[in-house]
Amino acid sequence: MTRPHLANGAAAGGEFRTVAILAGSGDLPGLLADRLQADGRSYRILAFRGFADRALRARADAVVGLLDVRRSVAALDAWGRCEVTLAGGLRRPSAGAVLDAFSALRDRAELASLMRRGDDNLLRGVVSLIEERGHRLVGIRELAPELLSPSGPLAARAPNLAESESVALGLRLLAALSPYDIGQALVVAGERVLAIEGPEGTDAMLERVRGLRPRWGFGPPKPGGGVLVKAPKLGQDLRVDLPAIGPRTVDRARRAGLSGLAVAAGLTLVLDRARTAADADRAGLFLVGVDAAEPMAR
Amino acid sequence: MTRPHLANGAAAGGEFRTVAILAGSGDLPGLLADRLQADGRSYRILAFRGFADRALRARADAVVGLLDVRRSVAALDAWGRCEVTLAGGLRRPSAGAVLDAFSALRDRAELASLMRRGDDNLLRGVVSLIEERGHRLVGIRELAPELLSPSGPLAARAPNLAESESVALGLRLLAALSPYDIGQALVVAGERVLAIEGPEGTDAMLERVRGLRPRWGFGPPKPGGGVLVKAPKLGQDLRVDLPAIGPRTVDRARRAGLSGLAVAAGLTLVLDRARTAADADRAGLFLVGVDAAEPMAR
Repeated sequence: MTRPHLANGAAAGGEFRTVAILAGSGDLPGLLADRLQADGRSYRILAFRGFADRALRARADAVVGLLDVRRSVAALDAWGRCEVTLAGGLRRPSAGAVLDAFSALRDRAELASLMRRGDDNLLRGVVSLIEERGHRLVGIRELAPELLSPSGPLAARAPNLAESESVALGLRLLAALSPYDIGQALVVAGERVLAIEGPEGTDAMLERVRGLRPRWGFGPPKPGGGVLVKAPKLGQDLRVDLPAIGPRTVDRARRAGLSGLAVAAGLTLVLDRARTAADADRAGLFLVGVDAAEPMAR
Repeated sequence: MTRPHLANGAAAGGEFRTVAILAGSGDLPGLLADRLQADGRSYRILAFRGFADRALRARADAVVGLLDVRRSVAALDAWGRCEVTLAGGLRRPSAGAVLDAFSALRDRAELASLMRRGDDNLLRGVVSLIEERGHRLVGIRELAPELLSPSGPLAARAPNLAESESVALGLRLLAALSPYDIGQALVVAGERVLAIEGPEGTDAMLERVRGLRPRWGFGPPKPGGGVLVKAPKLGQDLRVDLPAIGPRTVDRARRAGLSGLAVAAGLTLVLDRARTAADADRAGLFLVGVDAAEPMAR
């Protein structure tokens, strides 16, 4: 692991030759680095302490605290003009901690205003900070599109007619929710919406649905049933926040009594696709990529 | 308590002289009966076993199981043509139990189809069943409008500008959700939506928000904050399903770290208004009735 020296001021001019992976938790940062290496591309890893796992930290070019914005920016600047990508999980720190970390670099009142708004606005603040320094933010979509869901069934079973109607209802509702900066996912059983995801995330929402069933008896007449629908918000910046599913999502969906998962094709990461599909098959769940509206033109 | 004999066929014709209170849990059925008595109106109480409390069962004219639809309808018919009102809490039984109870009276396939849809559709089914028998469903709104929230502050503190903006955002989002038969309530902190109520109800949603805070650090920069916004769905039949708050709601809001509650004026029950307002004052919460769109013209 090489530690970059602190650079002064903006990044040097010139082409974007290096991809900088800002790495959180999970397998995605490593998978992405493998892919860039296989393609012969130059890349650097900036691993966030407390998020990136040991294997990734060992191959990282810098390991910094998530809130140490000054050091992160200095690392990027030292690597020249970078194509910067965010990969892996970064549980959001408290508002006060973010404010303190950013306050050295930007106007505090503006940040306080951002913090009162949703994730989208906060992430937009981070993006504009990176871009002001001369770097370019790129998404996993551009770097490794094969990690995204294709269109159509990913597992053996396809949704039946009733399930497809639940999925369509869910997609319409997600589109209606888009202006409000909440929820990239929801659960629909028949024509009834059982849950809309909030800041707690998809896993916690599926736990909630699991708790609803015995207590309230909601859902279609047959035991089980209900579908998870996941798609980005309209207007969502997919470079910083891409919906994702994986084996854990399938497991939670199964335990919540769902009959399948539908994700926006081309707009949703499928982590460990082979295992995700195999787990869905074993549980009898459908797993399908569906056409959803493109969140934003770029 | 008098037990009505089983009547055959439809209710007798003539004017609606008797109010039949179909009574669930909580104080509302008793309060309503007191009010009708004070007005010198004729009324009967049909208390649901396992829901109506002991005091109410003691003054009831009939006590039946919630799913014993045949006996409930027989009681109403025996009382002549009734103005029927639903009052108090009725936790929804399982789909299978409802189907079994209704199947003697209506087409089973139609009911199965209703059950796959949301609460609205199920309640509409119950309403049409009652109305087909010659009775007339009326709401608390018509019988005791003073139990509903007035417009403006109900407690000492009024919302400040930022809180009013959160309330306005919440009302817009509730309106956007209306076509989807979910959520009469949500929580907004600043411009961020923290939770949308599902079948779990307002209390459980507030518990969820309480759990979000320590873990995720969401919300405005100052500790606490966030508002509960509650309003009926557009298209909601207020005769069978009126949003309600009371002292328990204030307590849950306080524990979730909220700064106030806003409810649709004229469209939301406020149970035990004096205590609800006093509790809000003690907790420093605002409690306000706001103008929301009238759900349906009747």
